[in-house]
Amino acid sequence: MNYPILVHVTLRAGIADPEAATIERALPALGFSGVSHLRTGKTFRFELAASDEASALERATAMAERLLSNPVIESADVRLGTL
Amino acid sequence: MNYPILVHVTLRAGIADPEAATIERALPALGFSGVSHLRTGKTFRFELAASDEASALERATAMAERLLSNPVIESADVRLGTL
Repeated sequence: MNYPILVHVTLRAGIADPEAATIERALPALGFSGVSHLRTGKTFRFELAASDEASALERATAMAERLLSNPVIESADVRLGTL
Repeated sequence: MNYPILVHVTLRAGIADPEAATIERALPALGFSGVSHLRTGKTFRFELAASDEASALERATAMAERLLSNPVIESADVRLGTL
């Protein structure tokens, strides 16, 4: 069976996020005030063939940690389903 | 009050996603089979000062469409809360 998987990769707390800093700095000049604590992230959505949910999650977690994220600076949240 | 906002930007259906195609092609060689329909996306999480939820969502949606995504090829899902 195919299980829908959502992997959300975010920078760990304390790791600089220059893209977010640039956006946050640019917003007031574009007419948007009141934005704070902006952080960026990446998502990977896919379908994973597996015999059951537990094994789908286990393999997706291994993929997320080995291939889809850099565990030194990023953490990966893996879940069944879509956003 | 500050409202937590999550913006998820994804490529519209039919728009090529070369990063996803590359990952999907590389996975079998790395020992992960059974992955299909892989799509990438971006997230922006922030706090937005607003008087109520409705106005927070309205301003976040305007930001998402005008600044955080390219509406020609991307769609933006805006919601209150975190992932």
